[in-house]
Amino acid sequence: MSLTESDIIDRFFSAGGPKRADVLLGIGDDAAILGMPRDHDLVTSVDMLIQGRHFPEDMTAVDIGYRAMAVNLSDMAAMGAEPAWATLALSVPEASESWLSGFSTGLLGLAGLHGVALVGGDTVKGPLAMSVQIMGFVPCGSALRRDGARPGDGVYVTGRPGEAAAGLAIWRRGLQEPQGPAAGLLRRFTRPEPRLAEGRDLRGIASACIDVSDGLATDLGRLARASGAGAIIDLDALPMSDALSAVADPIEARSYVLGGGDDYELCFTVPQWALSDFERCASRWGCPVTAIGEICEQQGLYARISDEIEALEEGGFDHFR
Amino acid sequence: MSLTESDIIDRFFSAGGPKRADVLLGIGDDAAILGMPRDHDLVTSVDMLIQGRHFPEDMTAVDIGYRAMAVNLSDMAAMGAEPAWATLALSVPEASESWLSGFSTGLLGLAGLHGVALVGGDTVKGPLAMSVQIMGFVPCGSALRRDGARPGDGVYVTGRPGEAAAGLAIWRRGLQEPQGPAAGLLRRFTRPEPRLAEGRDLRGIASACIDVSDGLATDLGRLARASGAGAIIDLDALPMSDALSAVADPIEARSYVLGGGDDYELCFTVPQWALSDFERCASRWGCPVTAIGEICEQQGLYARISDEIEALEEGGFDHFR
Repeated sequence: MSLTESDIIDRFFSAGGPKRADVLLGIGDDAAILGMPRDHDLVTSVDMLIQGRHFPEDMTAVDIGYRAMAVNLSDMAAMGAEPAWATLALSVPEASESWLSGFSTGLLGLAGLHGVALVGGDTVKGPLAMSVQIMGFVPCGSALRRDGARPGDGVYVTGRPGEAAAGLAIWRRGLQEPQGPAAGLLRRFTRPEPRLAEGRDLRGIASACIDVSDGLATDLGRLARASGAGAIIDLDALPMSDALSAVADPIEARSYVLGGGDDYELCFTVPQWALSDFERCASRWGCPVTAIGEICEQQGLYARISDEIEALEEGGFDHFR
Repeated sequence: MSLTESDIIDRFFSAGGPKRADVLLGIGDDAAILGMPRDHDLVTSVDMLIQGRHFPEDMTAVDIGYRAMAVNLSDMAAMGAEPAWATLALSVPEASESWLSGFSTGLLGLAGLHGVALVGGDTVKGPLAMSVQIMGFVPCGSALRRDGARPGDGVYVTGRPGEAAAGLAIWRRGLQEPQGPAAGLLRRFTRPEPRLAEGRDLRGIASACIDVSDGLATDLGRLARASGAGAIIDLDALPMSDALSAVADPIEARSYVLGGGDDYELCFTVPQWALSDFERCASRWGCPVTAIGEICEQQGLYARISDEIEALEEGGFDHFR
């Protein structure tokens, strides 16, 4: 292995994506120096990905790089934030040029699409693992949070939740170059699209918002709990895509929609008074949005089917179970 | 293993160290929301630590937590920045309560001493590895950088570089409860003290600054290169502590001082015009500071001994060699 840490940074990461005037000092010093816009709050989150746990062993380097950036951008979307800067901590078992080149292509490519500059990082030798920290901003006081939902608010979800989990199942069956609907599902797993424009549109409209990383039921349950309330999901209203129906029977499809992770869609609540503003902005979105239920007083997660309401077991995924 | 990810966060990390009024939303949402002071730049860096590579296999959880925070605080010190917030990405093979408790004690304990709040994180199952990202601020335009040194500037180093490397050597020989000078050296390895107050004092005084993480020669070489200049080290002026002299012969001691990593001291340059201001502020410091050489026109790293100047082979540590 002949690449040194500084070779790796110079060759694969120093370009760092788009140039931003607010990056006063980027990669190469002890820290980055960044200019914050006035009257904005800083919004930041971090996600760590481990091979074999958060992505399959045989995932390509480009897809891994894309994913490491996408999951963080999705957190910015859930806050209604404008992403600006990212740092990368990367542990790789060996300094393979082709792997590093693919990884940085995926990571910086998606960053570039959203105007995010890579401003710092650390590259070490070790098991394949990475954490990306993203930083962005919102006008003071306008960030979306999980804890603002109130009884009576409608519950919505963007896109087609469950498709990514169905895509992962296809991957696990070894169909890495599928055709037809399966190809679309696989792409939903490998190339989730963070809903950044939608999240920003929801500032001042949504009372609460979360991104669906661990499954719709689990994440809506978190939103309701943080808000000190409960949520009722109309099972008949759940979005069921043609692609999902083509690869799964109705029961299996519903379990993908409610329990499948990795979608990175937004689940959010809208109070009655904001409905007309919401409908106006959602009509401009490039992705579907579905009303799937409502917030209720009684804490917990409930399912409504044919006007009967039952407690819903929370599904989803916990990394330590 | 019965602890879930949210149990781990609730029990060991949610307290998050000191309460800060500028943490508008801390751990528990998709991202943290942080209030930036006006007319300040944001300064941020990330460091990743891997077991067996950046700390010994048998290091205690408290010491690992301390180290993960210390190396990042040291980056803030090198920028002259005031640290404010941190996030943690943590991968652990199992959710051991005693390990997590020790780790969070070390991490949050040191964070608390410097007023740093833990505002977010991600906890996953995997090989023992962690990255801490630190965020802080400086009045606009006042951050210390590596690239401002000019020929004629004096070169200085805080503390006793080399002691941490000597401490690590003692650890590796299995002397985990040594006596006398060795005990002090071991503590310099396990409990490096980030030079935050000293870094802040150097704003407006130092022309360039770097923290000594990979060895004095390597890091001074980086500072000189970033500044488009060279550096001459007066070998006879290097600080040699009594503790170091007690455990190593003079040649070995000098190689610790020049090549030993993990010190987290500050190496910086001061122009002639700022010398009196510098001496005034350094006289208040709780740690020693030593003039060890000067910046020169000719790029490269040089040693002066008895008025002879020779090129100095850069030592130090590269994670990918």
